[in-house]
Amino acid sequence: MKLEVLPVTGIGDVAPGDDLAALIAGAAPWLRDGDVLVVTSKIVSKAEGRLVDVPTDGPERAAARDEVLAAETARRVATRGQTRIVQTHHGFVMASAGIDASNVERDRLVLLPKDPDASARALRAALRERHGLDVAVVVSDTMGRPWRNGLTDVALGAAGIPPTRDHRGETDPYGNELHITQMAIIDELAAASELVKGKTDQVPVAVVRGYLSPAAPSAYLADGPGAVVLVRDGASDMFSLGTAEARAAGLLEAALLPTEPPPAGEPADPAAVERAIAAVAGVVAPGTLFTHIPDKGVRATPPPAADPATLIRFGTDLHRLRAALAAEGAPSVPVTPVL
Amino acid sequence: MKLEVLPVTGIGDVAPGDDLAALIAGAAPWLRDGDVLVVTSKIVSKAEGRLVDVPTDGPERAAARDEVLAAETARRVATRGQTRIVQTHHGFVMASAGIDASNVERDRLVLLPKDPDASARALRAALRERHGLDVAVVVSDTMGRPWRNGLTDVALGAAGIPPTRDHRGETDPYGNELHITQMAIIDELAAASELVKGKTDQVPVAVVRGYLSPAAPSAYLADGPGAVVLVRDGASDMFSLGTAEARAAGLLEAALLPTEPPPAGEPADPAAVERAIAAVAGVVAPGTLFTHIPDKGVRATPPPAADPATLIRFGTDLHRLRAALAAEGAPSVPVTPVL
Repeated sequence: MKLEVLPVTGIGDVAPGDDLAALIAGAAPWLRDGDVLVVTSKIVSKAEGRLVDVPTDGPERAAARDEVLAAETARRVATRGQTRIVQTHHGFVMASAGIDASNVERDRLVLLPKDPDASARALRAALRERHGLDVAVVVSDTMGRPWRNGLTDVALGAAGIPPTRDHRGETDPYGNELHITQMAIIDELAAASELVKGKTDQVPVAVVRGYLSPAAPSAYLADGPGAVVLVRDGASDMFSLGTAEARAAGLLEAALLPTEPPPAGEPADPAAVERAIAAVAGVVAPGTLFTHIPDKGVRATPPPAADPATLIRFGTDLHRLRAALAAEGAPSVPVTPVL
Repeated sequence: MKLEVLPVTGIGDVAPGDDLAALIAGAAPWLRDGDVLVVTSKIVSKAEGRLVDVPTDGPERAAARDEVLAAETARRVATRGQTRIVQTHHGFVMASAGIDASNVERDRLVLLPKDPDASARALRAALRERHGLDVAVVVSDTMGRPWRNGLTDVALGAAGIPPTRDHRGETDPYGNELHITQMAIIDELAAASELVKGKTDQVPVAVVRGYLSPAAPSAYLADGPGAVVLVRDGASDMFSLGTAEARAAGLLEAALLPTEPPPAGEPADPAAVERAIAAVAGVVAPGTLFTHIPDKGVRATPPPAADPATLIRFGTDLHRLRAALAAEGAPSVPVTPVL
């Protein structure tokens, strides 16, 4: 397989109500069946009128931006300094919900398309019906990512192309079964296209030629499931919160440890209980004794002196142990000791 | 700019000690100055002998894998079920430290190259010196990422190509200054190449032609800083730990809240203190009173009855408040109340 990645130049400014299919077909009369069009979400948003008027400067602009961000946010993920990473209503995790102030008039912000898969399907249908072109469409945007500096383009929407290529269940030439190799094809197509698009060069569309075979149109006749299949739901994401936010959640959880017994479940892992006792050993009052009685729990013995300050400190230390148990995944409930 | 992405076929099996430059130049006599070679890290590792012998089955295999993983791990990032995401000694955050059991004999594991930037530089130098080719080299591997399903190829090493394209400080056609648009070019080149490489097709090298201009060789004569510039250090990463791990760290932090006063710093944000008091209001003993005295702290008053159980509970509630304050970023130290 040999690919070509071709820029579509000459599209110019896009305004609400513009016919993107006509603009693209006009700028790229060389388009062919089987091409994959990768369209920057910004021009999709502009054509769809996903623009918000904001003041050009000052605290009014910041306040208006905050308001727009709140409206586009389904869930806050992580905040540091000016950086606010949120999950959008689409499920994308992006800085500032993908709201963009670049390549637009100073008194406007561009929001993401409301439903980028629907945008991709509509553009594909328009190119097919009004311009006789059977192409696939990917709607792309630029995203940051944890762990690596620099941004890459990924797919927000797609139509006419399988979003992933799945190698699970295949075997390699050595007979090993492949387990987790589900490749995010449309993200790679978006990344490839960004290489020819650049950022200020007014090239909002690129074409990847050769990935879909025009000789086998049935392979790409269906719109397919779209880029939504790349959105990982929060529950299955191991990084659903920023580290600072998750740490704060753990602290708050410690503050709110339940006073009622947890529903009966698996007995706590004895090693985990021992680790929790060891963890707090250096910080509890001298003389306080935590004794692990397997299958029963932890017996907490306060220091002999039973003055009020010692008892208060004992209560504190009990809660320290409970937090350490919770950190080990072991639920606990305090039972008032007999003194 | 128009790109071509071309597969290099016919390289076949690579064994320790093989001359990768000769294999690639032999398989692709059509290579030209200015091409970007994207080489799957697996064949680099194999040529460099980064292989470990392991049992083919059973608990012995699992134990050997664990041992190899521990050796390749600089820091654990997140664990769920069988998935272990770690930071390697290179700084890459990857599942299983990038150790791979696919496309290799069943009794061997492939480790990442020891220094993928050095591997890229060495391959580039060999192609230049022994084959008269002035190309750039990217060493790629497949990685997962938070928030999005599916994997993409990214760059582990690079030579002869600027790793990023920086738009910061530029202005767009509307006069807006671009802030954060530093694109991870070599990751996008790796992604583009994966589209033609596939996984079981024995195409471990692809060529991106047209990105570097052969007409301006001075632009790519230097090896450049390499892919290491894409490694974000832990301190500046907002997702340095998995959510479950960071939550557990918060719980443990609550268990170990210091008993000594914190170093004098900024006074706590009064709103944060109020939020902490409100957070624990539903869980502390009836009659316990937390009163915020701005610039002083929180006065904690136990319920009137001073029996041992009440005092112990009061100590617990004090620690709950401290954990809630810590969750708000407010350090605290308990001062024994006068009863």
